[in-house]
Amino acid sequence: MNEAAQTLDGWYCLHDFRSIEWSSWKMLSEEERKSAIEEFQAILDKYATVEAEEKGSHGFYSVVGQKADLLLMILRPTMEELNEIETELAKTKLADYLLPAYSYVSVVELSNYLAQTGENPYENPRIRERLYPILPKANHICFYPMNKRREGNDNWYMLTMEERKEFMKQHGKTGRKYAGKVKQIITGSVGFDDWEWGVTLFADDVLQFKKLVYEMRFDEVSARYGEFGPFLVGNRLDKEKFEKLLVI
Amino acid sequence: MNEAAQTLDGWYCLHDFRSIEWSSWKMLSEEERKSAIEEFQAILDKYATVEAEEKGSHGFYSVVGQKADLLLMILRPTMEELNEIETELAKTKLADYLLPAYSYVSVVELSNYLAQTGENPYENPRIRERLYPILPKANHICFYPMNKRREGNDNWYMLTMEERKEFMKQHGKTGRKYAGKVKQIITGSVGFDDWEWGVTLFADDVLQFKKLVYEMRFDEVSARYGEFGPFLVGNRLDKEKFEKLLVI
Amino acid sequence: MNEAAQTLDGWYCLHDFRSIEWSSWKMLSEEERKSAIEEFQAILDKYATVEAEEKGSHGFYSVVGQKADLLLMILRPTMEELNEIETELAKTKLADYLLPAYSYVSVVELSNYLAQTGENPYENPRIRERLYPILPKANHICFYPMNKRREGNDNWYMLTMEERKEFMKQHGKTGRKYAGKVKQIITGSVGFDDWEWGVTLFADDVLQFKKLVYEMRFDEVSARYGEFGPFLVGNRLDKEKFEKLLVI
Amino acid sequence: MNEAAQTLDGWYCLHDFRSIEWSSWKMLSEEERKSAIEEFQAILDKYATVEAEEKGSHGFYSVVGQKADLLLMILRPTMEELNEIETELAKTKLADYLLPAYSYVSVVELSNYLAQTGENPYENPRIRERLYPILPKANHICFYPMNKRREGNDNWYMLTMEERKEFMKQHGKTGRKYAGKVKQIITGSVGFDDWEWGVTLFADDVLQFKKLVYEMRFDEVSARYGEFGPFLVGNRLDKEKFEKLLVI
Amino acid sequence: MNEAAQTLDGWYCLHDFRSIEWSSWKMLSEEERKSAIEEFQAILDKYATVEAEEKGSHGFYSVVGQKADLLLMILRPTMEELNEIETELAKTKLADYLLPAYSYVSVVELSNYLAQTGENPYENPRIRERLYPILPKANHICFYPMNKRREGNDNWYMLTMEERKEFMKQHGKTGRKYAGKVKQIITGSVGFDDWEWGVTLFADDVLQFKKLVYEMRFDEVSARYGEFGPFLVGNRLDKEKFEKLLVI
Repeated sequence: MNEAAQTLDGWYCLHDFRSIEWSSWKMLSEEERKSAIEEFQAILDKYATVEAEEKGSHGFYSVVGQKADLLLMILRPTMEELNEIETELAKTKLADYLLPAYSYVSVVELSNYLAQTGENPYENPRIRERLYPILPKANHICFYPMNKRREGNDNWYMLTMEERKEFMKQHGKTGRKYAGKVKQIITGSVGFDDWEWGVTLFADDVLQFKKLVYEMRFDEVSARYGEFGPFLVGNRLDKEKFEKLLVI
Repeated sequence: MNEAAQTLDGWYCLHDFRSIEWSSWKMLSEEERKSAIEEFQAILDKYATVEAEEKGSHGFYSVVGQKADLLLMILRPTMEELNEIETELAKTKLADYLLPAYSYVSVVELSNYLAQTGENPYENPRIRERLYPILPKANHICFYPMNKRREGNDNWYMLTMEERKEFMKQHGKTGRKYAGKVKQIITGSVGFDDWEWGVTLFADDVLQFKKLVYEMRFDEVSARYGEFGPFLVGNRLDKEKFEKLLVI
Repeated sequence: MNEAAQTLDGWYCLHDFRSIEWSSWKMLSEEERKSAIEEFQAILDKYATVEAEEKGSHGFYSVVGQKADLLLMILRPTMEELNEIETELAKTKLADYLLPAYSYVSVVELSNYLAQTGENPYENPRIRERLYPILPKANHICFYPMNKRREGNDNWYMLTMEERKEFMKQHGKTGRKYAGKVKQIITGSVGFDDWEWGVTLFADDVLQFKKLVYEMRFDEVSARYGEFGPFLVGNRLDKEKFEKLLVI
Repeated sequence: MNEAAQTLDGWYCLHDFRSIEWSSWKMLSEEERKSAIEEFQAILDKYATVEAEEKGSHGFYSVVGQKADLLLMILRPTMEELNEIETELAKTKLADYLLPAYSYVSVVELSNYLAQTGENPYENPRIRERLYPILPKANHICFYPMNKRREGNDNWYMLTMEERKEFMKQHGKTGRKYAGKVKQIITGSVGFDDWEWGVTLFADDVLQFKKLVYEMRFDEVSARYGEFGPFLVGNRLDKEKFEKLLVI
Repeated sequence: MNEAAQTLDGWYCLHDFRSIEWSSWKMLSEEERKSAIEEFQAILDKYATVEAEEKGSHGFYSVVGQKADLLLMILRPTMEELNEIETELAKTKLADYLLPAYSYVSVVELSNYLAQTGENPYENPRIRERLYPILPKANHICFYPMNKRREGNDNWYMLTMEERKEFMKQHGKTGRKYAGKVKQIITGSVGFDDWEWGVTLFADDVLQFKKLVYEMRFDEVSARYGEFGPFLVGNRLDKEKFEKLLVI
């Protein structure tokens, strides 16, 4: 039996992808549509206040391609709050015109492979900032879930802690090449959702997602041990863009 | 041919996951919604009586994410009773606003890897308590189905009884670290549903699910032999929370 | 090239799983529902006559869990008759409230691994009984499709006839332990449906399905060569239970 | 790099599987249903003329089980004609009561493993007959798509031409045992649809499908290199049977 | 850790596959249908202007088989423009009669395996032409996504740059045999969609797709390292054919 890496866990996280049911949406009167957008926007404004008070954070994106139209990524201190937000959104008028597309339940996680001894990491401000992150207002988002492989000779969970540390160290080096270009938030989902981790990337230049993920694929930790779920990419929505998206 | 582990089998178990069809639900009048909630709640009250008489048990949870909205986990002495409960629920008004999301059919199972000789286990009160369990009223539930792998050199069913015993013993040690934090109920589903076992975890601190499942993944029995299906996580619903969830 | 086992083939077989569309069913008047049930029951009565005349057989079950609500398993001398029955049922009123859930097309098959020389097996009454079986009126049914694996070193179809015979002989021994408890009907579906065989089990004690399938999984033929599809389990419906199921 | 087998390619082929939406179909008046059947039948009659002129061919079958109700298999000289037929059928009244179930796009293919030198195969009448086949009016049809495996040591595309030739020669011997019982049409779909080939079998005795496919599975080429998709089986529809199927 | 190949990236690309909901479309009046077609055609005309100005490109095809009916492939300088086009199309009248079928998000990519030193490739006109391509007006299109395999001994990402270069060089030779017959556009989708690359082929003779893809499958790079998703094939739509397709 190998030693599990210790993890540090922060805010709970829900990625909620929805598709717009355009043909029904168009049947509403302009006034009804306006009122539905305003009601939804008011909730987003409330969440912005929560974020300003550093009690949570969220990002709102328009998704490219048919997998979904909208992504609301939301961070909160408890699983119950995520659930309450789901219910709150389901009760809006706009929700009657949104179809479920995909969701992911996880918790912000820092793996402790590089932990320093003698420190209470939860008191370290730099670590706290990463566990309870205010999501960057980047132009683009990329989300994908992943597993570490357990197949034949490529079984991550049969490696020793030392081996895993070394693999992750190399992987971190690749990531650091993209410092300032791509911000990455890792959320753990073992026991919460179907894959072991969710990876959320933020960038102003969407091409950096491809460059980063492609380069990382050559790291032995990805090449031999990475298993990847669906990839979704989106463009940031502000109030104006959101309204423009939904106006008929 | 290897010897199969003997199992002890208790109550039959149905996990019934449903999604709320919000847009239709909202079209009901407030009175109709109230009456539908009351009818459903009356059935839950009846099941609470069954539980008080120790003739069965159930748990009712709100599920996080889009996979489902509600989970009713129900334990009964016979498969027929599970079926009758399904039908009873299908006939309620609320059911017209619930969509099937996922279900799992199994039976509470204790594997006898650690059995002691000369005992009739079904007369042992501590074993009876585990075969016919009253589900804990924990804040959170986690459910996932699993198989033991049968691939190339990682074929659980080709191991000797001794080897399997040893693997399970190590696994049990990891589990015991979480005593008092996580309660685990194993249900067997070979011949009943698509995976070999269902695992249901209960905890007041939802993070313990992730810690337990992640730590266990490093046990050789999971690392080499575990295959996992979908993971679903939920928050406990009492009468008040259930009504609050459904009120518009 | 290895020699294929000869098979004996009997009646064609359709497993037809359906889900009840409860919310539409409830919208019918009591009279309409009564009339729909009677029409369907009359067809089942007609099939009972076919069975009495030993020109076919059928079983009718209520399925546990969300995968389906009803299973009609039907045996007939020709594939055309199965198709005609499908059409006949589709034209009933009740069918308008049943959704397709899963189906399986196969033919009753005896593998000739244990064949005795010099005999025309189709004239052997004990073999005829198994090729043209009247389905037992057992309380419970279990159905699952399966393949023999063809992967790397675990390739059933690359074994010699002798090796396969020996594996099946051991497997048969496990089966015989359940004589009197579980009746098994094997149907072949190579060329007819997505898996190579369908396995249908009948038992009065539903737990015996789990015991049998679990114990068999340790037979090398299952451990190394068995690939299993979905498992479905049901409770027998007689006229009274069928009406009770559908009454609102 | 290994040499690819040369293929000879004939008519383009569409397998179009549809399910009947019975509950809506029943809502039509008898007259409307009659008119819809006649319109569809008139198109089939037109296709029969095309076949009589040897400018294409088609087969029309009732499918057994829930995967589909109808199969129209259609052969034409160009991909555009297949598309036009799809559109022509979509515009019929009957099509409003047919749901898409499965389709397959391919082209009649003869692999040239056994080619003779110095011949222009497209001028050989026996080869032309197989490239531009008039489909047999057999009682039964069986369709399945397949790949040649590329996994570890079982990688078809890494074999030499000589090895592949030898495997196919053995396979052909098994096929020839069924001469007069089963007619087989191979269509290639690399670049056109999700599998590499479609196999369509025709027989008056449906059991021969099972016997042929099962026996072939023991050929090393199938045992080690065959990967199979869904299997669908049907009964031939003539004008009378088609009307009988749809009459309420 | 192996060196990743450098890629050159051009226009962003959306493949948008849709199915026509014929039964609803037929319910419109002839005038409504005419107006919906004209509105959609006007947008296509606008895109033609964009193409004439070399600020993007697009292709419009009718898809064969049930997977989809229409494919709009669209190239633009930014991911935001792809998203705006999706929204613009969703707001058309015709879109109310189109169902999502499949989509793919990627970016035109040239892999730099054969790069020459000392050159800024983005200033090379021949490279620019390939990064910002005007799609050929070929009769036929073929699309499929693909991965490079990472399994056991067949792990592309564990090969050295030299090995990968050599494999790709051989592969390129096969491709060049089809020069003048098939035009190929590779789009990269790592980080954008579920597979690593999209391959889009154009040809006037649809059979060349099959010949090319089949011959390439024998290249070791495909035989051992290629994993392929769904294949879709279509016929080019001009204004007249588009109207003819939709006229009832």
